[in-house]
Amino acid sequence: MGIALAVKKIQSPRPEILRRTLEKICEQMRQTRPTAVNLFWAVDRMKRVWDQGKSDDVETMKKRLEEEALRIYEEDLEINRKIGEKGRALIKNGYGVLTHCNAGGLATAGFGTALGVIYAAWAQGKRFRVFVDETRPLLQGSRLTAWELVQEKIPAVVLTDNMAGWLMKKGEIKLVLVGADRIASNGDTANKIGTYGVAILSKWHDIPFYVAAPTSTLDISIASGRDIPIEERKPEEVTHFAGKRITPKGICAFNPGFDVTPHSLIRGIITEKGIVREPFERTLRRIKSE
Amino acid sequence: MGIALAVKKIQSPRPEILRRTLEKICEQMRQTRPTAVNLFWAVDRMKRVWDQGKSDDVETMKKRLEEEALRIYEEDLEINRKIGEKGRALIKNGYGVLTHCNAGGLATAGFGTALGVIYAAWAQGKRFRVFVDETRPLLQGSRLTAWELVQEKIPAVVLTDNMAGWLMKKGEIKLVLVGADRIASNGDTANKIGTYGVAILSKWHDIPFYVAAPTSTLDISIASGRDIPIEERKPEEVTHFAGKRITPKGICAFNPGFDVTPHSLIRGIITEKGIVREPFERTLRRIKSE
Repeated sequence: MGIALAVKKIQSPRPEILRRTLEKICEQMRQTRPTAVNLFWAVDRMKRVWDQGKSDDVETMKKRLEEEALRIYEEDLEINRKIGEKGRALIKNGYGVLTHCNAGGLATAGFGTALGVIYAAWAQGKRFRVFVDETRPLLQGSRLTAWELVQEKIPAVVLTDNMAGWLMKKGEIKLVLVGADRIASNGDTANKIGTYGVAILSKWHDIPFYVAAPTSTLDISIASGRDIPIEERKPEEVTHFAGKRITPKGICAFNPGFDVTPHSLIRGIITEKGIVREPFERTLRRIKSE
Repeated sequence: MGIALAVKKIQSPRPEILRRTLEKICEQMRQTRPTAVNLFWAVDRMKRVWDQGKSDDVETMKKRLEEEALRIYEEDLEINRKIGEKGRALIKNGYGVLTHCNAGGLATAGFGTALGVIYAAWAQGKRFRVFVDETRPLLQGSRLTAWELVQEKIPAVVLTDNMAGWLMKKGEIKLVLVGADRIASNGDTANKIGTYGVAILSKWHDIPFYVAAPTSTLDISIASGRDIPIEERKPEEVTHFAGKRITPKGICAFNPGFDVTPHSLIRGIITEKGIVREPFERTLRRIKSE
């Protein structure tokens, strides 16, 4: 949509201007963040519209780019609903379901992936509770996921990230559902920092850990999580809080935006085409190429 | 010291008034927090001064209570220095040492337990880095531990609690050192919420996890961590931050102040009398009775 909006502003009827604008905005978008692969996937889709219609006049191209952006939006919504349908059977009445960060309507075109599964199970009439990691440093759990769940009137409990292990020990968590920013061919999954720790804690307590993601998140060009670039973010996100310094001067901070959960810790990956389980590679490659 | 100060204010020369004040303040102090056992231990020590000197006049008793409080202070400092001495060999040049919450001079009479070990190793000339979990919700890591380490000019890096696993995966952590609020006979250890998760992550990555604590933290009256009461704190510590609401209205929050790490995850307990290892029970009982 950003690309469609950028070209919409072009006044000139010269295709050359449109081409340059498009190339510049696509490159800028690629540069924004390195980890999530859907970004590159969506930029490539928009780029393909241009490649396939080079002879079109500028106004036609603007319209086709807008249509493609809206198509991506509609498809994403539909894909998320399908992810919800495919995954909802994992949630049973009375469950405590833990999620980390936001993989809801606010992080997608709408509905969400991990939260999409939760919404779909709730819509079936199942009754359960959602435990929400606050997800430091940026608190996407406390601010986004908690807000979504309150809107949907689904009972939700926020916890600081370091409480998840104890909650599992107490038997409160029956299922863990998270989203993904990039999934390698072997199933290794990059997601918000802290996901790796949650996955280990889940394994330790024998709690099923599932990733919910559209196939656009699959990156079969890489063999494993080792090849996923991890965004290192500015230290102020850790040393400050809501603009206030919470650490003494002179202290350093570590701030990777993501981590990689090895496929061995993942019970299954819920995609719009069904739940993929170990061995991941063959099935992931197949559904990606379908 | 609180008890010594409370009785110091008494104007009446009647021992009955002193007795009543003493009983009231001791009971109030016992009620403040349920988890850390040193609190009850210190109150009992002050109480014993009274029990052993009932026939003394009020002024003498005030003086003896003050002396006892100062003795506890001096002893604690000395004990912490010994914990440092006993534990410092665990830290080697070039190590990354992770700690959780504050077990430093600010949490003890001075010097600290887990941080005492770090200070002692640093004083030996060893050079290493300390990784500090920020320790949500109250940020004792970011605010207290980071401050202490900056004062001592020991290189320190703050991280959000959910980053510890990834840091371990990257091979940055060679040792984990934490304090304790109560240690049961079998070695199960209550400490700040999040410690249990850190212990599991340490085990998973085969990183030695040590607890540093004075023998006053040992509670041999209880068999295991199951008998340690865990303080449940107000939800606002999680839903708010520095007085600002960070969660939507209508959301619940989980806020246990502590968790219990089972002894099977603990490589050793560093006390002023030496490092205790599995099987913990016999040694813990012996050193407690010495």
